[in-house]
Amino acid sequence: MLDYQGSGMSVMEMSHRSAEFVEIAAHAEADLRELMQVPDDYHVLFLQGGATTQFAAIPLNLTRPGDPVDYLDTGSWSKKAIKEAGKYCSVNVVASSADSNYDRVPAADQWQLSADARYLHLCSNETIGGVQFNQVPESAVPVVADMSSDILSRPVDVSAYGLIYAGAQKNIGPAGLTVVIVRKELCGRARGETPTPLDYAVQAEADSMSNTPPTYAWYLAGLVFKWVKEQGGLAGIQARNQAKADSLYTLIDGSNFYHSPVESANRSMMNVPFTLPDASLDKEFLAGAEARGLMNLKGHRSVGGMRASIYNAVPQTAVDALTGYMREFERERG
Amino acid sequence: MLDYQGSGMSVMEMSHRSAEFVEIAAHAEADLRELMQVPDDYHVLFLQGGATTQFAAIPLNLTRPGDPVDYLDTGSWSKKAIKEAGKYCSVNVVASSADSNYDRVPAADQWQLSADARYLHLCSNETIGGVQFNQVPESAVPVVADMSSDILSRPVDVSAYGLIYAGAQKNIGPAGLTVVIVRKELCGRARGETPTPLDYAVQAEADSMSNTPPTYAWYLAGLVFKWVKEQGGLAGIQARNQAKADSLYTLIDGSNFYHSPVESANRSMMNVPFTLPDASLDKEFLAGAEARGLMNLKGHRSVGGMRASIYNAVPQTAVDALTGYMREFERERG
Repeated sequence: MLDYQGSGMSVMEMSHRSAEFVEIAAHAEADLRELMQVPDDYHVLFLQGGATTQFAAIPLNLTRPGDPVDYLDTGSWSKKAIKEAGKYCSVNVVASSADSNYDRVPAADQWQLSADARYLHLCSNETIGGVQFNQVPESAVPVVADMSSDILSRPVDVSAYGLIYAGAQKNIGPAGLTVVIVRKELCGRARGETPTPLDYAVQAEADSMSNTPPTYAWYLAGLVFKWVKEQGGLAGIQARNQAKADSLYTLIDGSNFYHSPVESANRSMMNVPFTLPDASLDKEFLAGAEARGLMNLKGHRSVGGMRASIYNAVPQTAVDALTGYMREFERERG
Repeated sequence: MLDYQGSGMSVMEMSHRSAEFVEIAAHAEADLRELMQVPDDYHVLFLQGGATTQFAAIPLNLTRPGDPVDYLDTGSWSKKAIKEAGKYCSVNVVASSADSNYDRVPAADQWQLSADARYLHLCSNETIGGVQFNQVPESAVPVVADMSSDILSRPVDVSAYGLIYAGAQKNIGPAGLTVVIVRKELCGRARGETPTPLDYAVQAEADSMSNTPPTYAWYLAGLVFKWVKEQGGLAGIQARNQAKADSLYTLIDGSNFYHSPVESANRSMMNVPFTLPDASLDKEFLAGAEARGLMNLKGHRSVGGMRASIYNAVPQTAVDALTGYMREFERERG
């Protein structure tokens, strides 16, 4: 952390124009391209501002004022993206599972697609509801996906998307870095009022250094990409993640005590919400969990109950500790 | 770095919603307010995107389309801010020192102010030219200052400004964090097309956490604020910086070998450009400097010669090593 390869400097102290950092940045991009098998006709950008900034940057880059755009509404992140896009475009919500408290991805045959949308937007994994897409939708227009909470968790066919974006803080690295993977032909027509650092074509031309990038976060992301490669790449990571998720869902489905509010086809490998038979038990469950070092299990108030977030960095042993505790709690209170 | 106050977690791993991080964030803000004596009617925001993103955010927050705005042009950063503002406003360049290769701040009696500007923008320290404002201009409209390269280097009368902003990577902390200090009454009227994370009122309402903030950079900034307090606050830091700058300028002015291209009244305490009598000596000077561990002294191509950047973190001993080498080089080649 404090001395990068004998330079006497932490990467934190390096200029983004230094030969050392330019090499770090290029390696990180190359490793991400290799991991996700990003085709050559896509830019890979390392930006700032999180997915929330992309909620605006996407319509600013890909549309003209008032253009029709299609959005799927599968949870709270979808909803935020829809609200922001409404400032720039005519948003058509093609389908929503809000009426059933976001318990699924609405079936594709029920989607009301626009005739002339500029793109179809989805959030591949909703962190609060624990709802995940299990395949890329077929679409005549570019598919734009917020993968903030499941990028690098499983193999992805990048060529099936027009644009993939992700805040780094779940599976990539520290907060403050945003990855955008975008088909080159979609860039170069940003609106005049696009803040320059949000213009994909400008950033692509400058290797994401049109302005000073978040150098340390980029460096750490590169270390994470190397770690993912060591785990056998995305196929290896997927196997680990599937095993972790299976441990939880198998326990939940085999129990009359715990319940998953999500339809089985769309259950997330990253966020596993579950409820107890009676919400009055929640407090005791959480206290016992914390006493065992199992933190941050309280579900979002919109879903209630518990939520286990099992991102790439969570090991199977932590999930085993949780399932062990869940079994114990069920024996005592069930 | 790896275990924050026995939590078992690095700050890098903490949720920005955790009690630990919320406290870190609030302490950092309180320390910055104390250091800069920020009045209560100013918001202090911790954002992303650097000063370059603020070049757009400022007109988006403070103006309507086509509004007149006044900009001073004292160097390359001024020029970039002017170019970006031109996408949103009718920009009046009140004065420019471009004709004399940015060797000074144009005298105030030559400024062509608009009758009805929404604000007057300046860059308090130009890193390439080494030109620094030595006082706040008198202005009937809010003064907006890019202090990216000299914030925390000396006391500032915040109440004389409408808005102060700074990318963190010079005197505050790592790249990827941006500080905005803005008079509250200027907020709340952002344009409809402002990306939400750039809306000052929204971020102020959410304690700069409308979206996930760059938590680790914010934490490190807080450590820097504590360090500045230990140096005697901004008065103490100013004394150190003045002494460092004096060492260089005294040597330069007392020499017929080295030359400062900047008028003495506007010489920067942070960036000290100087030339040798003959540019053909530059390469030899730089090679000798690097051999002594004195790095990054090459001046920008637009100025030529050398440039010593002596931000807060540079100790007097490093400046002494440089002046020692400069004297030695002059003896040998002068």
